[in-house]
Amino acid sequence: MPGPLSGIRVVDLTSMLSGPAATMMLGDQGADIIKVEPPKGDQVRSMQRSDDGIPPTFYSINRSKRSIVLDLKQDSSKEVLNRLIVDADVFVQNFRPGVIERMGFGEDAVRAIKPDIVFVSISGFGESGPYSNQRVYDPIIQALCGLADIQADRDTGRPKMVRTVIPDKTTAVTAAQAITAALFHRERTGEGQHVRLSMLDTMVAYLWPEAISGLTFMDREIDPRRGQLGLDLVFETQDGFISAGAVSDSEWQGLCRALDRPDLIDDPRFDSASARVENTGDRRSIMSEEILKWPRAEILARLKAEDVPSAPILKRREILTDPQIIENGTIVEAEYPGVGRVRQPRPAARFDKSPSSIQCPAPRLGENTRAILAEAGYHADDIANMIDGGIIRAAE
Amino acid sequence: MPGPLSGIRVVDLTSMLSGPAATMMLGDQGADIIKVEPPKGDQVRSMQRSDDGIPPTFYSINRSKRSIVLDLKQDSSKEVLNRLIVDADVFVQNFRPGVIERMGFGEDAVRAIKPDIVFVSISGFGESGPYSNQRVYDPIIQALCGLADIQADRDTGRPKMVRTVIPDKTTAVTAAQAITAALFHRERTGEGQHVRLSMLDTMVAYLWPEAISGLTFMDREIDPRRGQLGLDLVFETQDGFISAGAVSDSEWQGLCRALDRPDLIDDPRFDSASARVENTGDRRSIMSEEILKWPRAEILARLKAEDVPSAPILKRREILTDPQIIENGTIVEAEYPGVGRVRQPRPAARFDKSPSSIQCPAPRLGENTRAILAEAGYHADDIANMIDGGIIRAAE
Repeated sequence: MPGPLSGIRVVDLTSMLSGPAATMMLGDQGADIIKVEPPKGDQVRSMQRSDDGIPPTFYSINRSKRSIVLDLKQDSSKEVLNRLIVDADVFVQNFRPGVIERMGFGEDAVRAIKPDIVFVSISGFGESGPYSNQRVYDPIIQALCGLADIQADRDTGRPKMVRTVIPDKTTAVTAAQAITAALFHRERTGEGQHVRLSMLDTMVAYLWPEAISGLTFMDREIDPRRGQLGLDLVFETQDGFISAGAVSDSEWQGLCRALDRPDLIDDPRFDSASARVENTGDRRSIMSEEILKWPRAEILARLKAEDVPSAPILKRREILTDPQIIENGTIVEAEYPGVGRVRQPRPAARFDKSPSSIQCPAPRLGENTRAILAEAGYHADDIANMIDGGIIRAAE
Repeated sequence: MPGPLSGIRVVDLTSMLSGPAATMMLGDQGADIIKVEPPKGDQVRSMQRSDDGIPPTFYSINRSKRSIVLDLKQDSSKEVLNRLIVDADVFVQNFRPGVIERMGFGEDAVRAIKPDIVFVSISGFGESGPYSNQRVYDPIIQALCGLADIQADRDTGRPKMVRTVIPDKTTAVTAAQAITAALFHRERTGEGQHVRLSMLDTMVAYLWPEAISGLTFMDREIDPRRGQLGLDLVFETQDGFISAGAVSDSEWQGLCRALDRPDLIDDPRFDSASARVENTGDRRSIMSEEILKWPRAEILARLKAEDVPSAPILKRREILTDPQIIENGTIVEAEYPGVGRVRQPRPAARFDKSPSSIQCPAPRLGENTRAILAEAGYHADDIANMIDGGIIRAAE
C-alpha cells in the first residue's frame, strides 16, 4: 500500500532545513522527491563532522529522497533540470528572493515547460522588505517573531532563545501542508499555482493563538504575557525530574493523597480552582518540597494511581526506552547496507489505508544521478559522457 | 477565488487547541468547518475572561468556522450529527481514546453513514500504553518528548519548559497536513481512511532533526546536546536587545567594521571560522561589550549596511509595527459587526490562484445552529421545535 502522495514527483532545489524537512514529509507519504544538489552538496552535508559523509542532521531531514548533482551554472545541466521538470508535479526552492530567477528557473521559465506545476517558494523573511535579502539564521527569526520575548527571563526581562530551531521546523510542516493543499486543488481543477511562505509569517501565525492573541481585539487589548503558560511544571524528586499538574478539584485531591498530604485537601488556600490560582506560590513550594521526598518511580506510580496528569521529564536518550514511546512505535530501527543500523522517528501521522513509510535512507551526494537520468530518457552512453565531461556528478 | 480546499466539509468535534487550530487552517483554505460543541461549549471559551463571550485565544483558533450546539447525550442530537456526517468529507475528534466510540460515533458508526469519509483521531499520547488515558497538559508532553531536556539550564542541568504550547500547535499543523494528504488520496482513489496522530509522536518527529539526531546512527551515536543551537544570540544595546550572527568570514569582517573595531578582523583568535568557534567565549564577550555602546537603531543600521544578519528582538507589541511585518502584510485588521476591530495573523502560506482567506470571525456558541440545520434539510418548524424542546441550542 503506497502512501497518500504516491504518484507525485517533486523537484526539490531546497537546502538547509525548512525546505528539506518539508519535502521529507512528502517523501515519507509516497511522493518521489528528486533532491537536486550543487556539486558541493547541500550545506548541511558539511555542517557536522561525520565518518562517511552523511551527518545525522542531514540524514534526519533527507530520508525518502533521491539525490542528483547538477551544476546549474552549465547549460547542459540546465537542460537536464528542464527535462526533470517536465515530469514533475511540484518544484520547490528556498533561495533568497531573486536568485531562482537569475538561475533561469523562475516561475515563468518553469511553467513554460510544465504549465500546471505547483511552484513553491520558501523564504526567510518574505520576498521584499528590509530583511528580505538577508541570510536567514534561525535566531534572527526567533528575535523578530516574538519567540525570544515569550522566553524572556521572568526576573530581568532579558529575551532568551529556544534552543532548537522552531522557526525552521515549523515552516517545514506548514510548507508541507500548503503544498499538499495546492496538489489537492490541482487534482480537482487542473490548475497549478505559486505557493509562497516565509519563516517569519509562519512563526507569527504559529505563536499567535495563546502567546500573542491578547492583541487580537484592538479596542480591548490584553497584555500578551497574560496568555502564557505559568510557571514551569518542573519538579525534582530524589532521583530525577518529573512534571505534574493538578487543575481540577479531583486532580488536586489526588495529588494531595499521592503526596501523603491529605491534610492539604481542605486547606482553604487550595480548596477551589480559583484559590489554587491565587496561592500559586505557596502551592508550588509545598509541591516542590513534598515531591523531593520521593524516588521518581514511586511518586510517578502514586500520581498515576490517583489519576493526576504526570510524567517523568525524559533526557533525550531516555525517550528511546520510555514505555509509551515503545507502545507507540514512535522510533523505528532499520539497517541499510553501507549505512548501518539507524534509528529514526516514524512519520507522526498514521494513515490506515495509504500508510506513510520511510522510503529509503538519506542519499549520498549524487547517489541516484544515473538512475534519475535514465528515467528522464537519457541513454547510457550520454550519461557516461556527461559524467566524464564533468557536466553532472554521480556518487563514487 | 475560493481557497484550495473549497468544497470540502469538515465535521469537527475537537476542543482545546490541537484540533481547533488544525481545522482553522483548513477553514482558512476554504473548507466549510462545522464546529460541533456541547451545550457548555468548547472549554477554551471559558478559560479566559472576556467581555462578550469570545476570549482572544478561542477567537484565534476558531475563525473560519461555524458553530452548532448539540447535546450528544440525546438521541435527537445524535440524529442531527448523523445527518451532518452524510454531507461531510472529514470527521475530526480529539477525545481521549475510547470516548468517541462510547458516544456512538466511532469510525465504524461514522463510516456506515458515509463510507468514504476521512476519519481523524488526534490524541495526546497514543491510543494505548501507560499514558494514553491521562488528560493531556502541554507541559506533560514537553516533559516526555525531550523539549524540557533541550531547554535545560546550562549550569544546573535543571530541565525547563518552553513558555508557549509548542506540542499543541505543532500537532495542529501536522494534523492539517495529514488531513490534506488523506483528502488528496481520496480524490485520486475514492478511498477514505482513518488518520491518527498523537502529540507525543508529533513532537518526537519534530524535535529529532537537529535536537535528537545524534541518536540516529546506532553504532556511532553522538551526544544529542552537540546538535543544539549554541549560546543565545541575544545582545543588549543602549536601548533594547538585538540578535546578530556572523558565521562566514565576510560576515565577521562586516561585524567588526560595524562595531568600529576593524582591529579584530586580523585577531588570530577570530580570523577563521574554526578559530571563531574555538574562541566563542571571548568573541561573545567582546561582541556584548561593543554592542552595548550603541543605540539600537544605529547599530542595526550599521550591521545591515555591512550585510551582517541581524534584527531587533521585538517585544510582541512591537511586531505590529515592524517594517518587514508591514511589508509582508503578516497581520491583517478587520472589523466585524458585534465583534469590533480585530487583528489577526493571515494564513502564512499564500496561494496565488486559490488564495486562503479568513472566512469569518470565530463564532459565538451555537451561532450557526439554525443555518446548519436548514442546510441539512430540516424544516423551519422542526428547527423551532428542536430549539424549544432543548434538543439543540441556538445563539441568543
